[in-house]
Amino acid sequence: MLPLHGIFPPIPTPFDSDESIDFERLRTNLERWVQWPLAGFVIGGSNGEAVALSVDERVEVVARAREHIPRDRLLIAGAGAESTRESIVMAERMAQAGADAVIIVTPHYYGPRLPSGAFIQHYGRIADASSVPVVLYNVPVYTGVDLPAEAVRVLAEHPNIVGIKESGGSVTKIAQMVAETADEFQVLAGSASFFLPALSVGAVGCVPALACVAAQPIFDLWQAYLGAELDQARQLQASLIQPNASVTSRFGVAGLKAALDQIGMYGGPVRSPLQPLSDPDREALAATLRPLLTVSAQSS
Amino acid sequence: MLPLHGIFPPIPTPFDSDESIDFERLRTNLERWVQWPLAGFVIGGSNGEAVALSVDERVEVVARAREHIPRDRLLIAGAGAESTRESIVMAERMAQAGADAVIIVTPHYYGPRLPSGAFIQHYGRIADASSVPVVLYNVPVYTGVDLPAEAVRVLAEHPNIVGIKESGGSVTKIAQMVAETADEFQVLAGSASFFLPALSVGAVGCVPALACVAAQPIFDLWQAYLGAELDQARQLQASLIQPNASVTSRFGVAGLKAALDQIGMYGGPVRSPLQPLSDPDREALAATLRPLLTVSAQSS
Amino acid sequence: MLPLHGIFPPIPTPFDSDESIDFERLRTNLERWVQWPLAGFVIGGSNGEAVALSVDERVEVVARAREHIPRDRLLIAGAGAESTRESIVMAERMAQAGADAVIIVTPHYYGPRLPSGAFIQHYGRIADASSVPVVLYNVPVYTGVDLPAEAVRVLAEHPNIVGIKESGGSVTKIAQMVAETADEFQVLAGSASFFLPALSVGAVGCVPALACVAAQPIFDLWQAYLGAELDQARQLQASLIQPNASVTSRFGVAGLKAALDQIGMYGGPVRSPLQPLSDPDREALAATLRPLLTVSAQSS
Amino acid sequence: MLPLHGIFPPIPTPFDSDESIDFERLRTNLERWVQWPLAGFVIGGSNGEAVALSVDERVEVVARAREHIPRDRLLIAGAGAESTRESIVMAERMAQAGADAVIIVTPHYYGPRLPSGAFIQHYGRIADASSVPVVLYNVPVYTGVDLPAEAVRVLAEHPNIVGIKESGGSVTKIAQMVAETADEFQVLAGSASFFLPALSVGAVGCVPALACVAAQPIFDLWQAYLGAELDQARQLQASLIQPNASVTSRFGVAGLKAALDQIGMYGGPVRSPLQPLSDPDREALAATLRPLLTVSAQSS
Repeated sequence: MLPLHGIFPPIPTPFDSDESIDFERLRTNLERWVQWPLAGFVIGGSNGEAVALSVDERVEVVARAREHIPRDRLLIAGAGAESTRESIVMAERMAQAGADAVIIVTPHYYGPRLPSGAFIQHYGRIADASSVPVVLYNVPVYTGVDLPAEAVRVLAEHPNIVGIKESGGSVTKIAQMVAETADEFQVLAGSASFFLPALSVGAVGCVPALACVAAQPIFDLWQAYLGAELDQARQLQASLIQPNASVTSRFGVAGLKAALDQIGMYGGPVRSPLQPLSDPDREALAATLRPLLTVSAQSS
Repeated sequence: MLPLHGIFPPIPTPFDSDESIDFERLRTNLERWVQWPLAGFVIGGSNGEAVALSVDERVEVVARAREHIPRDRLLIAGAGAESTRESIVMAERMAQAGADAVIIVTPHYYGPRLPSGAFIQHYGRIADASSVPVVLYNVPVYTGVDLPAEAVRVLAEHPNIVGIKESGGSVTKIAQMVAETADEFQVLAGSASFFLPALSVGAVGCVPALACVAAQPIFDLWQAYLGAELDQARQLQASLIQPNASVTSRFGVAGLKAALDQIGMYGGPVRSPLQPLSDPDREALAATLRPLLTVSAQSS
Repeated sequence: MLPLHGIFPPIPTPFDSDESIDFERLRTNLERWVQWPLAGFVIGGSNGEAVALSVDERVEVVARAREHIPRDRLLIAGAGAESTRESIVMAERMAQAGADAVIIVTPHYYGPRLPSGAFIQHYGRIADASSVPVVLYNVPVYTGVDLPAEAVRVLAEHPNIVGIKESGGSVTKIAQMVAETADEFQVLAGSASFFLPALSVGAVGCVPALACVAAQPIFDLWQAYLGAELDQARQLQASLIQPNASVTSRFGVAGLKAALDQIGMYGGPVRSPLQPLSDPDREALAATLRPLLTVSAQSS
Repeated sequence: MLPLHGIFPPIPTPFDSDESIDFERLRTNLERWVQWPLAGFVIGGSNGEAVALSVDERVEVVARAREHIPRDRLLIAGAGAESTRESIVMAERMAQAGADAVIIVTPHYYGPRLPSGAFIQHYGRIADASSVPVVLYNVPVYTGVDLPAEAVRVLAEHPNIVGIKESGGSVTKIAQMVAETADEFQVLAGSASFFLPALSVGAVGCVPALACVAAQPIFDLWQAYLGAELDQARQLQASLIQPNASVTSRFGVAGLKAALDQIGMYGGPVRSPLQPLSDPDREALAATLRPLLTVSAQSS
């Protein structure tokens, strides 16, 4: 059983000015992140611009990241593809590259046509074949697909499927998934914006883009909840809403990268057709992050 | 300040076999409900089939209900209409009929065309004119409209707007509204399915259809949260998910009424074009409710 | 058989500055419209702000309009309500007020819960009871409901259901409805924006808001199609797209009313919470209408 | 100027029982298709399961297909990718493999975050770099993205962008795009279901999955329209609605492949997680196709 308790930021892929991957910046970022209270990293997810990387690039980012991530931190590698067979190939390549687990986004191009049973077959085959544990990944805002709770209930019984990153924002669905699966199946909130509510119904961790920029208050929120300090947990959750929106729904991956630039780490450009932030947006981003970073600096 | 802490079931309107309102059944239902741990009642909401009632019927239901609801329980009357002027008239009629507060659903026919400022003007004028406090009501599943959090932030400053029933299911939005408004502004979860997560971010009460059938476990959940008994709260929340779905998203108002019939209260028919449950659906409903009602009977 | 061939503008309801109905302006507008090449009028539809009128107001508008609409032009009165029983009452009141037919918008508050059979029952009962013919009305942009083509196929066999106003914009659905129903069932395009494509698959008429402002080019398009002058028809259709958007999807009912003001008829205010056009929007509207009105003036 | 007039079926990629590409079946299918009245072929589109192929597979299918497609028929190759840079690489590989043009689906994973300008930049750079003409491809049902008409207006001025395959179903948008672009920019209906309406507003061709199975009636419809035989065109369009739905919205790519099997060509399996048709669905498909194939056989 691979434990998924704690905070796992989905890190962006650094590019230089010609949009090539900047592996040196990946290293310097990781050297800083590994000093933070993080249980591990998701590499090659939505915030990693995985869809904009070639297959070989996706694998190389994982291999290089592994060199800088100690063994006591999990490396969860995005290995999703539209076809089952390609996902199986990717999962194996990621395991070879050093991933502790793979996270597989729902196939989605034909999403509206896929019945629940198609997802069950897809993930079941991948989990059968994979040499490392599999984490499901549901992110309707990008995929237009909402992995049905009944498919999750069935898939949770597979010994090689250890959990789900649920980014859909329905805490009711998180409660249902926790209630209908064994304790071994671990639900991760896909965003810091609903981490406390998700904890209240049984989530064990979080995969927050915001943790790339400010891990401490998210970690503190988790600890406050575990300590039943409900007022403090609520106040921390409240403080995360606007900063979190700035690096996710409001400004997207470009916002997350700009935030990294603003705190002295490396964000850099996004790959076209994603667009960089305008100057006014950069200022709005900075204003939103400021209160959180001040608090964060004080508490760390 | 009108306190909205606690459980406020949105009660259905009983019809006899020719779809006329059965006021006698309204009385017998209320006589039972007032013995339950409820802070008050929402009358003439979505579950009250308000849109299927004439204006005079809507008012008479409130007037008759008031006769059977003691003054220490709140009667919150649905008074929404598509136009601001009609909503003002309805709010006054409801106040005259004995309502302690009015709840105003977002106007929605032209919803996609309405900017945030239109909602601010609409609710502001109604609150200016109303002799009783106003509760906002956001229910996207029925209206196709999601009242923007920034409009709520502005409206929360109006002295005659005391809270919002938020049925949209985004606990992130609930957290944001709590964080951005004064303590006097009270947020109610619009469904039992996310009551615990909503409490965790600062909601003070709930308007759950399920409470028409099983108020005790919802009340117990609330008390468990207030007592920081987080495991018990989580288990109670888990037990509510499927029964709640059966009287809301899965079977709708007809499901809620069938559930009342199944526990020996009066549900009766819905108004056409709403359709009664099929026999298999009635059995599925009963199977879903059974565990909850058993527990509920034991604990009461 | 009531023929629905030709152009039927859905007229707005004129209000004075305090939002009361201005029946004198209704008269003066109608006196001008009846000189245009129109087969009749839809009164009390979406563009008539019917949802913002009281029940008595809705009936009085129809009664007053009838005084100024000669018998050789059809008056089709909006009589929809959320419940079947209220719709039946409204249809009878509209017939008494002088309507030649009633148009019934799909019930929609519980729309996502309504199976195809609920619509069949709803419209069937109304058509059974109505003393005047019934026209179905599908307008997903406002209702969030798309009346299923299979329900239309069944309803088209009812002797008192004579057609449908289809505003959904799927010409494929229009083609399907024409193909699957008898010739007696008449399909009307719900907008000038797809009138020619709808004619090409068998629609017989149109209910265009734009015809309140510029009926001639829409009439000319119809005649060009009937005369198989396909290039001319296409050019006319092209000329309607932007002006039509300005009085529908872009600026809504407020745009339609502003356009009437701009051509020297009476538009006047909308009822709150609908909002008046800003000055820049009024200018954009005027710019969009100008080419069409110039051509229209020349051809009439 | 590459002319796009006529019928261009988007052909499926044949797989054998282990889901490997069956190039021999591709050859036998093409040998039959080239005898039909088709202006060319779209290879590696949505119906070609391009998202389920590896990059090398996508290129090889085009190279092999070219061997069996004479030079007087266009080969339009799908070359879309999520990033601009990858799309440029793919376009060049497809040109080298023998494509006469490339068709580029809208990037979509980050679709909701992409402003109109991002699409303009994306397609502009690809068209700058491509050695063969570029066709835009808008297919909201799969992508969740609707390429804005104003972006198309700008892109249509690029000398290397020759047209768009519009599968969104809004004929109003097609009319707008035709009206707002020069005659050199060619709009193709993305489905047989709205080919006649699209022709009526200026489309010049069609990319219909149904043409893989029954090209003749679609070709006849086109000729009837060009000959201003409007009744015949309308009847042909009506006859296509249900068969077209069976190989697109109703049963998807698996339906298209099953239809090929039913007419004695090769459909074969889909790649997982797409699912094969159930036996009842196969029968429903056959029943829907039968009238069309009978007519088609008689007319050819």
